[in-house]
Amino acid sequence: MTNDNLLLSADALPGGFQFAAVTAGIKASGKPDFALVIAEAPASAAALYTANRVQAAPLVVDREHMARSGGRVRVVAVNSGNANCATGEAGLRAAREVCSAAAATFGCEEHEVFPSSTGIIGVPLPAEILVRALPAAREQAQATAEQFSAFARAILTTDTKPKVATATCTIGGKTVRIAGACKGAGMIGPQLVPHATMLAYVFTDAVMEPAVLDGYLRGAVEQSFNSVSIDGDTSTNDTVLLLASSTADARVEAGVEAFGAALNAVCLSLAKQIVDDGEGVTHVVELQIEGAASDADARAIAKTIAHSPLVKTAWAGNDPNWGRLMAAIGYSGVAIVPEKVGIWFGEHEICRYGGRSPLYDEAAAHAYLKQREFSIRIVLGMGDGKCRFWTTDLTSEYVHINADYST
Amino acid sequence: MTNDNLLLSADALPGGFQFAAVTAGIKASGKPDFALVIAEAPASAAALYTANRVQAAPLVVDREHMARSGGRVRVVAVNSGNANCATGEAGLRAAREVCSAAAATFGCEEHEVFPSSTGIIGVPLPAEILVRALPAAREQAQATAEQFSAFARAILTTDTKPKVATATCTIGGKTVRIAGACKGAGMIGPQLVPHATMLAYVFTDAVMEPAVLDGYLRGAVEQSFNSVSIDGDTSTNDTVLLLASSTADARVEAGVEAFGAALNAVCLSLAKQIVDDGEGVTHVVELQIEGAASDADARAIAKTIAHSPLVKTAWAGNDPNWGRLMAAIGYSGVAIVPEKVGIWFGEHEICRYGGRSPLYDEAAAHAYLKQREFSIRIVLGMGDGKCRFWTTDLTSEYVHINADYST
Repeated sequence: MTNDNLLLSADALPGGFQFAAVTAGIKASGKPDFALVIAEAPASAAALYTANRVQAAPLVVDREHMARSGGRVRVVAVNSGNANCATGEAGLRAAREVCSAAAATFGCEEHEVFPSSTGIIGVPLPAEILVRALPAAREQAQATAEQFSAFARAILTTDTKPKVATATCTIGGKTVRIAGACKGAGMIGPQLVPHATMLAYVFTDAVMEPAVLDGYLRGAVEQSFNSVSIDGDTSTNDTVLLLASSTADARVEAGVEAFGAALNAVCLSLAKQIVDDGEGVTHVVELQIEGAASDADARAIAKTIAHSPLVKTAWAGNDPNWGRLMAAIGYSGVAIVPEKVGIWFGEHEICRYGGRSPLYDEAAAHAYLKQREFSIRIVLGMGDGKCRFWTTDLTSEYVHINADYST
Repeated sequence: MTNDNLLLSADALPGGFQFAAVTAGIKASGKPDFALVIAEAPASAAALYTANRVQAAPLVVDREHMARSGGRVRVVAVNSGNANCATGEAGLRAAREVCSAAAATFGCEEHEVFPSSTGIIGVPLPAEILVRALPAAREQAQATAEQFSAFARAILTTDTKPKVATATCTIGGKTVRIAGACKGAGMIGPQLVPHATMLAYVFTDAVMEPAVLDGYLRGAVEQSFNSVSIDGDTSTNDTVLLLASSTADARVEAGVEAFGAALNAVCLSLAKQIVDDGEGVTHVVELQIEGAASDADARAIAKTIAHSPLVKTAWAGNDPNWGRLMAAIGYSGVAIVPEKVGIWFGEHEICRYGGRSPLYDEAAAHAYLKQREFSIRIVLGMGDGKCRFWTTDLTSEYVHINADYST
């Protein structure tokens, strides 16, 4: 890459998609705040949305449009700076107004437009300024790595950097490309249905039907976006959209391991980038829970640890206070036997049989926790259930960022 | 009160209890760290313990002793600075050693001793230094307001101030006194069974049977200690103990409203003092949830709000970002209809029908939230369920305190 603005190499971009990013005027900063994807032909689509019962207006419209179109999308229209959530009927009208204007601009049906919004909740979305920006977006849209990079930047809010990932696989002798972009740094405790605070858009040039796409997406999300948490606040706007343009001349049916693995890799990379760029984060922690009675139990323990203010502040201080981990395991709601619990920080055994390990070395543990990234392995001795989960510490900087958001 | 060290007036102290507080040497600070209560005759007792599945050694011993004694306690022995939790068999032996020595010192049965510990988890408790301090405690013990005050101070850890509350009621023409002391400033998300991170000791001079005491205690705890949260971390050591000395010549059976009201008032005062002294707290927030389908639903929403880092950091910034409240309501797991939700900050209507109220005045809302104490009322429009719950903001100071605890 010779251009500093490029987030991926030109040959990594799936064919069939054009990208645009313009400044409509929603962000006070004047940075690009309206990002569009235009599929050159109707793309197969699958989407997952937040499990929050309060759902932003664009998610209501997305469900309607996906149902009417049978999972076909021509235009994705993402504004950043305003979540268009808790905005009532006016919010729904605003979302529909943007879709209607985008359909007219790009020559498709209104129900082939997929809107997304991210930013502050409860403030009316000024649809007219997005509508006014559509002609400029149409002029600019191109199927290039430059434009993809611009798209990836325009969807950001409190993120400090753009997040993209790519992968390829070979299907029937043909190369299939997958590329994704996402945003998210706070209000991150994704719970997509079937079980995200983030917006993620993943593109492929494979030939795929919407139902097949949906199956791959559900599998990929569970082990990626649904396995990370920053603050445990499940957003009202979380959306993951997977689009297939069919330009690669390679058909992917259900059960193609090479495609599944490539998609999983892209989603996991994006999810980990969200954690790494979490608000005020100074440590990224991989939790490995093993020996639970079930995978669900392992996951419940990982989430309880990931949401414990006392555990997360100890991490901020590089503090090997493993008693806080024991307390969180204990109140997770999962049936455990404290005397069976073992805890390792990387290769350092910290806790054995529920008590301090005879090998416990506080100075070594403290040094290990000074690293930006570390692993904590907890073995429960109850069964074969396990999970991997990624989370962060809780720092003063997180408090500063979130105590000064709208005022 | 002429003595600055007195936390209650001499005539507010229930008869029949002597108090002592000595420096055994567990706290590095050299402050008193071993607090004792000696009932002059076996007191009727009822206790509730944390719902955490990891339970500190003293709680295991307490359950055994209460079962063996049939709810009779002669000595309460509380050490601060070490939680004696996640300490395995050695921890149990240490707790028993202290009880055995206390029984010998004060002339009672070992199973009439009720031990408690609070402080760091996972560090062996040096029983011998507590045992060595017992003779000094015996010398010092007196049934005075001074000694009660010293007890209330010696049980503290990160608390910035002692917490006591008193009440009286008249039963059959006789005055019954209730006085309580508690500690707790972090790891506060009590879940006592039937649904505490805190230690609370409440004393009365009424004549009461243990089973009757238990009934009153359960009722009082639900609307006090179980209705407050600072960080949502449910401790491994939470204990509430209620003792009745029978010195007042006034018998209280089940269903005596005057006694129940007085006990509730003492427990609620203690619980609110814990919230007010929460680690790094700059705002105390009363949540009033109304119109839920059930009281349990109201409670689930209150707890979700009370544990949301985004909501709590907004409060730290006096930030009227009510969208974060809507998001928390939405991911609480409770079935709600967003379009029915109304939110008030004190008398200020913020949200109507799930959207920004036409009366919303950001400057006025911001000014209201600058107060140290404020109320948020949320009306759901689903039924008659309601609750009141007290919680705090999440500040940089909380992070500083908890990032530097043991290192």
